[in-house]
Amino acid sequence: MAPIKFSIEKELVNPTGRQLGRAGTLETPHGVIHTPAFVAVGTKATVKALTPEQVKSTGAEVILANTYHLYLEPGAERIRSFGHRHDGVGLRPDAVGGLHKFMNWQGPTMTDSGGFQVFSLGVAYGKELSKITKITDPSQMIALRSLDSEVPRLANIGADGVSFRSHHDGSLHYITPEKSIEIQHDLGADIIFAFDECTSPAEDFRYQEEALERTHRWAKRSLDHHHSLIRANGGINKQALFGIVQGGREESLRKRSAEFMKGLDFDGFGIGGSFSKDDMETVVKWVNEILPKDKPRHLLGIGEPEDLFMGVENGVDLFDCVAPTRNGRGGTLYTSRGKINIRNAEFREDTGPVDIECGCDVCKNYSRAYLCHLYRAHEMLGGTLGSIHNLYFIINLVKNMRQAILDNTFIQFREKFLDKYF
Amino acid sequence: MAPIKFSIEKELVNPTGRQLGRAGTLETPHGVIHTPAFVAVGTKATVKALTPEQVKSTGAEVILANTYHLYLEPGAERIRSFGHRHDGVGLRPDAVGGLHKFMNWQGPTMTDSGGFQVFSLGVAYGKELSKITKITDPSQMIALRSLDSEVPRLANIGADGVSFRSHHDGSLHYITPEKSIEIQHDLGADIIFAFDECTSPAEDFRYQEEALERTHRWAKRSLDHHHSLIRANGGINKQALFGIVQGGREESLRKRSAEFMKGLDFDGFGIGGSFSKDDMETVVKWVNEILPKDKPRHLLGIGEPEDLFMGVENGVDLFDCVAPTRNGRGGTLYTSRGKINIRNAEFREDTGPVDIECGCDVCKNYSRAYLCHLYRAHEMLGGTLGSIHNLYFIINLVKNMRQAILDNTFIQFREKFLDKYF
Repeated sequence: MAPIKFSIEKELVNPTGRQLGRAGTLETPHGVIHTPAFVAVGTKATVKALTPEQVKSTGAEVILANTYHLYLEPGAERIRSFGHRHDGVGLRPDAVGGLHKFMNWQGPTMTDSGGFQVFSLGVAYGKELSKITKITDPSQMIALRSLDSEVPRLANIGADGVSFRSHHDGSLHYITPEKSIEIQHDLGADIIFAFDECTSPAEDFRYQEEALERTHRWAKRSLDHHHSLIRANGGINKQALFGIVQGGREESLRKRSAEFMKGLDFDGFGIGGSFSKDDMETVVKWVNEILPKDKPRHLLGIGEPEDLFMGVENGVDLFDCVAPTRNGRGGTLYTSRGKINIRNAEFREDTGPVDIECGCDVCKNYSRAYLCHLYRAHEMLGGTLGSIHNLYFIINLVKNMRQAILDNTFIQFREKFLDKYF
Repeated sequence: MAPIKFSIEKELVNPTGRQLGRAGTLETPHGVIHTPAFVAVGTKATVKALTPEQVKSTGAEVILANTYHLYLEPGAERIRSFGHRHDGVGLRPDAVGGLHKFMNWQGPTMTDSGGFQVFSLGVAYGKELSKITKITDPSQMIALRSLDSEVPRLANIGADGVSFRSHHDGSLHYITPEKSIEIQHDLGADIIFAFDECTSPAEDFRYQEEALERTHRWAKRSLDHHHSLIRANGGINKQALFGIVQGGREESLRKRSAEFMKGLDFDGFGIGGSFSKDDMETVVKWVNEILPKDKPRHLLGIGEPEDLFMGVENGVDLFDCVAPTRNGRGGTLYTSRGKINIRNAEFREDTGPVDIECGCDVCKNYSRAYLCHLYRAHEMLGGTLGSIHNLYFIINLVKNMRQAILDNTFIQFREKFLDKYF
């Protein structure tokens, strides 16, 4: 039996006749996620600069940690065998360890597959490639491609897996689909992902197709190994496995990938890739029109407000992105009237909250002037408060989208929000 | 009328016949401090890496901020005129501003006088001089003195005040006793300090005497200006002023200083200085035998467990020190069996709490292994959790000393603690 249960509560009423968006609930062994939902990123088993209590105060229901980072440090085995409980005297080893206990987060967790890190340490290493890459004309793509031979890579992709050097100490590692699944079983998150290759939007069709075939083989192997580990564990399974759709910006490949993944026994799906911003909506549409409606879909690594609206309207149920916390640590804060850099001199005497429409703990208790002071004085509390605010802002935005779907007011809500935001 | 009320609840029963230590309460306009108490240091209007809620969770009753730092950034006037309250819609300017509102700390606050910063930017600038300086023989003192001419200073002391360059931008500033009191009135803390000169233990008698006479003149001027500002404010006074006893390691000077301060209308006293560890106890004894018993005494900048015991036994009511939070950020954590460096490899798989006898939120919920991971991964949460634990540890230690005074078990408690700690 699947360890998660996904139920659609209501579907988006879209005046264009197209109907993709939906509000639902995703039950996991560690609690319910109300979808669409924004997942807080806790790369190294910590949402940067925040305690789990602070993460909870932002409304976050689920945290996504990174397989690649935790495999290297502190090591998946350490997290698996780790466990403690408080028995009134002190902490004692428990029978069962895992990510939840290690980081003291009681709610649902996810781990990614490590595929994106392979991309960012491989072809994207040292370049300006990220989850969203601005590509305006084909010559730019060729220029990006031509860099391949000039920049050293930390990762190399083979048919069976990826060999890479640790960004910590240069030690050599080899990750196969089986290895990725084993690591993720050790970490013990509620939702895990099949091992995939995230390609650069600058790659040509031939490479995209070759990479996609690899990703598909790896998906099958991830699934098979997941099942064999479950069998070895007496059939007990507490982890849902999501397959990841790839295929770059190519319609034929994206559709082929969605059809392929649909045919496998995954509990849900990720939509992966490093996107050109203009391509993202078409890609999400192609894919979600094919993926089975009754399983959850996670648009990986995307989190700016306009992209969240696009995703929700097109049937995405889950999002994650480092932007809220990364921006928060740097002083770029979300407001209902767009992003502001709180370090700017104009905020030094501004006794108002970061965002007058925001209900987060930071906006209730602190002024822009105080936050401006903290960032200028390089005080760690600035990054903490900024991250709390940003995470609340983005999580709450997606929650409001969910409510708007339930209320049949999604289109109006989107227009009102984006009009003010931009 | 004095804005604070100090009451002694119980005096320490000391088998040697000497009776100095005491447990009491210090009522301030923002709440009660149970003495002896350890004051959390919030240099730039933030206890580094902690929210006020987290500071409160450590048991802290009072925060000390730094006049020098806040004068430079964000500026005392900004804090004075700052104010906000939450009225359900957002934050609105209030009639009255000040440090409490700026940093969102509801409890008692203190500000120091800026005198220690004058010392650390002046004679101590670029040298290994701090609140505690290890001096083992006189030749070392001469060596320290001889450095004076070689190392550039940022501060220069004159008869009327101190001129110094900002460590931020090199801008020139001049602080007199009157200016220090004005800044501290702007900041609005419950307890403020007279402007003083903190001397190096390496200075000779002649310089110590000269500096002490200056400190005494400045104390008188601080007090006079405090009273004239109160008169100008229609007699309303919400701030207690403490005078600071100086005099280095010289018995005659320390006693002269205590007698002088005793004769002035201060609400309490600070014991200042940069100490050689061996000198500290004798200095505290000389001074506290003279200072009036019915007013609180604050040993400035001291906070290691053994020094806290010494201070409490010898009649100190208040302590402050950056050590718990500075150590916490660096990974040096206090335990009942001494300090540990949590980054050490031995803790990577240690599922126990930092200190099995500690009742803080960190020891209840996290393991040494997780903290070790956070510090090694350079995660900000490490510094936050380490600071919460250390602050709780030290604050709770002083609270336990207080209880031991009330229970007539101070000497036993000290022996038991120090036996295990060292």
